[in-house]
Amino acid sequence: MLNGAVPEPDPTQFTGPDAAFLEDFATLCTFGATPGGGVDRQAGSPADGEQRAWLTRTLQDKGFDVQFDQVGNQFGMLELHSGAPYVLVGSHLDSQPTAGRYDGAYGVLAAAHAAFRLAAEWRADGTAPRYNLAVVNWFNEEGARFKPSMMGSSVYTGKMRPEDVLATTDPAGITVRESLEATNALGQGDGPTAVYAAEIHIEQGRSLERDGIAIGVVDSNWAANKYEFEVRGEQSHTGSTVIADRRDALLGASMLVVAAREIADHFPDGAVHTSVGQLDVYPNSPVVVPSLVTLLLDLRSADEQLLAEADQLLHERIERIEHAARVGISRTGSHCWPVTPYQSEGVELAEKTAANRGLTYTRVKTLAGHDSTNLKDIVPTVMLFVPSVEGISHNEHEYTTDRDAVTGLHVLTDVVRNLCLGELDPR
Amino acid sequence: MLNGAVPEPDPTQFTGPDAAFLEDFATLCTFGATPGGGVDRQAGSPADGEQRAWLTRTLQDKGFDVQFDQVGNQFGMLELHSGAPYVLVGSHLDSQPTAGRYDGAYGVLAAAHAAFRLAAEWRADGTAPRYNLAVVNWFNEEGARFKPSMMGSSVYTGKMRPEDVLATTDPAGITVRESLEATNALGQGDGPTAVYAAEIHIEQGRSLERDGIAIGVVDSNWAANKYEFEVRGEQSHTGSTVIADRRDALLGASMLVVAAREIADHFPDGAVHTSVGQLDVYPNSPVVVPSLVTLLLDLRSADEQLLAEADQLLHERIERIEHAARVGISRTGSHCWPVTPYQSEGVELAEKTAANRGLTYTRVKTLAGHDSTNLKDIVPTVMLFVPSVEGISHNEHEYTTDRDAVTGLHVLTDVVRNLCLGELDPR
Repeated sequence: MLNGAVPEPDPTQFTGPDAAFLEDFATLCTFGATPGGGVDRQAGSPADGEQRAWLTRTLQDKGFDVQFDQVGNQFGMLELHSGAPYVLVGSHLDSQPTAGRYDGAYGVLAAAHAAFRLAAEWRADGTAPRYNLAVVNWFNEEGARFKPSMMGSSVYTGKMRPEDVLATTDPAGITVRESLEATNALGQGDGPTAVYAAEIHIEQGRSLERDGIAIGVVDSNWAANKYEFEVRGEQSHTGSTVIADRRDALLGASMLVVAAREIADHFPDGAVHTSVGQLDVYPNSPVVVPSLVTLLLDLRSADEQLLAEADQLLHERIERIEHAARVGISRTGSHCWPVTPYQSEGVELAEKTAANRGLTYTRVKTLAGHDSTNLKDIVPTVMLFVPSVEGISHNEHEYTTDRDAVTGLHVLTDVVRNLCLGELDPR
Repeated sequence: MLNGAVPEPDPTQFTGPDAAFLEDFATLCTFGATPGGGVDRQAGSPADGEQRAWLTRTLQDKGFDVQFDQVGNQFGMLELHSGAPYVLVGSHLDSQPTAGRYDGAYGVLAAAHAAFRLAAEWRADGTAPRYNLAVVNWFNEEGARFKPSMMGSSVYTGKMRPEDVLATTDPAGITVRESLEATNALGQGDGPTAVYAAEIHIEQGRSLERDGIAIGVVDSNWAANKYEFEVRGEQSHTGSTVIADRRDALLGASMLVVAAREIADHFPDGAVHTSVGQLDVYPNSPVVVPSLVTLLLDLRSADEQLLAEADQLLHERIERIEHAARVGISRTGSHCWPVTPYQSEGVELAEKTAANRGLTYTRVKTLAGHDSTNLKDIVPTVMLFVPSVEGISHNEHEYTTDRDAVTGLHVLTDVVRNLCLGELDPR
């Protein structure tokens, strides 16, 4: 996949609602399409506005009532039981720059088509579900343009304040509020009340593909320590300043990037993941020794004890780097979370659903954050994965086969049906 | 100096033309003044436009004819011998972001005041110099906003084409042409023809201060290999992608920054300087393993053999980094120059001038590039340094005492007098 184009969805290989799903997915892939076969539709961008408008029309055509909440979360609501709370099913349409087509978008569209099928099914057979149903497109899950990630679902679940989110600026100084107004996505209120939640997503790893398994049932998320660091040195001349006199912030930051990888390598079997995805240099001029570097460094593990050891190693390394590069390193922000389980009743429901369809399935952990990792903290939440070819993620070559995508849609539909019918209600 | 404010110029400690020089320097320090005691007047910025307009008025008040050439070099011309070529004396007013007050600006203002004194002297005593005299403010010596550095003097000396310079863009996409038009600094033609050139500058090192010497006479420049590198990896997810699968461009770039410092440390006695001043990450998102990093890496030495050894070490390290970080590293640009001498007759003239004034002086090499390093390639050129406290450079705390600044002005005046009178002409 790395050197070829990503195959286009091919609805002609499917029939009925499966073909309709793939047709819609092909349309969705056109918003913010990049020459490399991926998409660029960062939160609140014109491309994000266009795809949201398209999703509104698509949902309204099927009789759903579409509303935006106070931070741009988009809900397509189907009232099935007046006054009851909602089963929320969805993901996010926003993307990284030069992203793949599937991350988030697959989950939103699968949610919409699961809801379309259930609405038609219940209209036809007269079933009266216990709960209402809402398809949701959470605002800014990626955090590429506006930090932090998972913004919309964080407000919905009470972890961030809406006024703080609306005042957040992108690197050009544009606020979330301005971006939402510009894309007709700023609404009011808190959105519908949830009783259960479900999300489907590509795996972003290669375990399902490697083991030939159709469905991953997420039972917990990895713990993560995400840090924002400032490395402070002193401006001087890159040519004339004696090396021993330099306090080079970029040297210190580079040593920190290298140290992060060495810490990951210190733990066997990929038990700890580390990374630096973002790094900014000041004044970033060809002939000035940098005085300030800011960077975001993550440590992640499924084992909280190992994560604590890795964190200890990191802070020991920081002290040594401060001395070696003659810089000061300070932590200016942090966002940490422990290993937290998805509700076991939801995991069991998903397993039963996959088994009933004769599919292979296994329990997996999510290394990445998802909107569902927020939702599970307020309501029982089911998170499903489908295989991702070569595990490629946040890359234009990200790809899931049509067959796997459709299979995931089937399982999600069954899960949502059961949630709406009260299968997880206390007995 | 690092933790205090920079002292203000204090004209009250001087009299006559020396006091007038310091008064003008105090005014010049106000253009683009920063809260930290420095200046920010990058090439073609509004602050650059304001200081250029002020210089025009200051020169015109003394009867100089001010013209801009086709790439914004500013000349204040005094005709002394009709039809003769010009002695060009000056430096640059543009600065780095959060720069010191002295770099370049001292040299332009000292040039102007040297010219004012000579004009008055010759008017008074009826001397008829052999050459005309022009004060010059070269465009974009710093290269902070528009790359490369020494742009204006490179066009003047035939090393760059004016059309290429005018089409060069800053990171916001604004061209040099647009910035010159916006600051009323776009003229026509090639400027006056040079016969000799002179420049005075702060040392940007601490050797003169350490040794208690008033005047440095520059006899050559260090050799430099300046490279632009692209480090290419593959986008993936910072959290979920298995470490062994990653091709992290920022890890590779960081290893290169660390390697550059290790190469400098490999050579004893500060014989090789290395640095990375500029580094940009793509997509620079918190949760995406970077796919592309561009950076500028310099190697410099007074010894071309050592520079060649350092270069060899660098390229060996690059191969190892490519393997270790699973990235590709390619050189996308280079700007290299050998050790080149300033003309010996100019060096001797400057030494004689300093000796005549009873000053201490010594020969030095310039590690940094200057407009004079371009000029010396077309005409005999004299380059003088004055001491810089603690050698601080490209930093708001850069400082040269009033006494040293005035002493440098006196020597520059004597040198320019001799150049205009034909002292360096072939006998």
